[in-house]
Amino acid sequence: MAPEGGTVRELLRAGPSAVDLGAIDPRSTPGLPAAAGSGRGRKAWARGQVELLGAALGRQQEMLYAAASGVAGPGAPAGAPTAADPGLGRGRPGRVLLVLQAMDCGGKDGTIKRVAGAMNPLGLHIRSFGPPTEQERRHHFLWRVRRAVPPPGYVGIFNRSHYEDVLIARVESLVPEATWRARYDEINAFERKLTAGGVTLLKVMLHISHAEQGARLLERLTDPTKHWKYQPSDLDSRARWDDYQAAYAEALSRCGADAAPWYVVPADRKWYRDWAVAHLLRETFDDLDLGYPPADFDVAAERRRLCGG
Amino acid sequence: MAPEGGTVRELLRAGPSAVDLGAIDPRSTPGLPAAAGSGRGRKAWARGQVELLGAALGRQQEMLYAAASGVAGPGAPAGAPTAADPGLGRGRPGRVLLVLQAMDCGGKDGTIKRVAGAMNPLGLHIRSFGPPTEQERRHHFLWRVRRAVPPPGYVGIFNRSHYEDVLIARVESLVPEATWRARYDEINAFERKLTAGGVTLLKVMLHISHAEQGARLLERLTDPTKHWKYQPSDLDSRARWDDYQAAYAEALSRCGADAAPWYVVPADRKWYRDWAVAHLLRETFDDLDLGYPPADFDVAAERRRLCGG
Repeated sequence: MAPEGGTVRELLRAGPSAVDLGAIDPRSTPGLPAAAGSGRGRKAWARGQVELLGAALGRQQEMLYAAASGVAGPGAPAGAPTAADPGLGRGRPGRVLLVLQAMDCGGKDGTIKRVAGAMNPLGLHIRSFGPPTEQERRHHFLWRVRRAVPPPGYVGIFNRSHYEDVLIARVESLVPEATWRARYDEINAFERKLTAGGVTLLKVMLHISHAEQGARLLERLTDPTKHWKYQPSDLDSRARWDDYQAAYAEALSRCGADAAPWYVVPADRKWYRDWAVAHLLRETFDDLDLGYPPADFDVAAERRRLCGG
Repeated sequence: MAPEGGTVRELLRAGPSAVDLGAIDPRSTPGLPAAAGSGRGRKAWARGQVELLGAALGRQQEMLYAAASGVAGPGAPAGAPTAADPGLGRGRPGRVLLVLQAMDCGGKDGTIKRVAGAMNPLGLHIRSFGPPTEQERRHHFLWRVRRAVPPPGYVGIFNRSHYEDVLIARVESLVPEATWRARYDEINAFERKLTAGGVTLLKVMLHISHAEQGARLLERLTDPTKHWKYQPSDLDSRARWDDYQAAYAEALSRCGADAAPWYVVPADRKWYRDWAVAHLLRETFDDLDLGYPPADFDVAAERRRLCGG
């Protein structure tokens, strides 16, 4: 069922004009059709829609994979040079990269499980970015990111990303201001290069409220099977909530070009979050006009070889 | 529901004594309990079991991921040095590596979709090995494999593997006999190093019949949405079926140490194949005695910090 009031991409786009996160209600549900009903029924409805969308995403992902298989071949190592585009199939053999950012407890892991879980894991290229290792710190901040770019045919997901380098790096003063300020332009140049290389970028901020984060942190402190997800430093970041929101707002407006757009997904309601991200992916895939590539061999001759006829 | 006649690992283990693939019926269903019924009902039953097993595998995968999160941290780049084992949690923080091998059309991709698809893609580390690139050919045959080893906390899957270097390399004479003959020992040494580093190896050959391969190839030649999976060279490999079976048999017996065992899964019936691989994974996870790690912080103090109480 189609979203109401426009595409989800139209409804959730943020930037490149100034972004006011305070004006976006984390409990809102933009685009959710009236058919979803009200109250608790909406949750079940949205979960059902995500299942349906997931099946469609799986088919589109296979076409993306198939279109690339005749070129450099899926399975080529990450970061391998992009093969020249020979115009295989109806669309361009490409790759999609979903960048997920959020405050702690924002739901990145859950989104990956629910939305990406519907696709064939064989065609997914997921990378999580934690605090940089000693080796990574010796390189430019984009070094580890370049190595994580999905190969042609793959759907990549960044669980956190190079945006941490203008978020935590800024708020926690990990580098001088001049350094992180220069990074907006460096990120824009990097992303322009990606899109020129056939990578379709979809950048998503999962937007939760301060109150919802508190509730989810409390859950992690209450349920022993969730202790491992908690770190005392989470509360230090929480104490700087406003600084992080300001850093997010600037990143979204400074790095929100049309070819590498940002979307803000209200994420206090997990079912809406998943529904919205699934739609964002679906709309992105639809634009690629995917199809199965035609045979590059003589089908009838191969059938004769196989059947000995 | 438990398998009958032993664990699936006991029933499907091949090697290190001589392996006779001709004696293993690709349509057989070892371990399938009588409760599965007969005829077409067995298929639905097995699919339901795979769903249930998948949910359990997902929980165990999360524990594996959690146990590693306090150590080097999931998200550490592939091939990063193994962190020293501090004995976190009830089990050892480790990693599991499923190696999948099969003749063309053997069902590797389908197995990954069905069985791995039940787990959280965030914790999967899947690598496909195609023909080596020019860069890879300049290195030792294990170079690209070492770089693909899953980091601690991850479930890795090799879609084809270093075994191609004693299979296709042997049958198609890509290297001199002395070279591929030496590789059995090199592989054994490599796998010993992996297991010593905390990697639990599970090597699976999906065993299909010559007739079933013919039927699946014909399907790829008949359905235009499957043309992309077909290559004319598939028929050249098919013509050397017996040579490949002999190469498999030798690899399974030469590289079948108890710490890095091979299993042969009869794979003409896709539903049995998925059921058996899900059980193999489940039994492997069970051995790891996984649990959630205890908090490494003062839970009560953190609750007071969070709630301001």
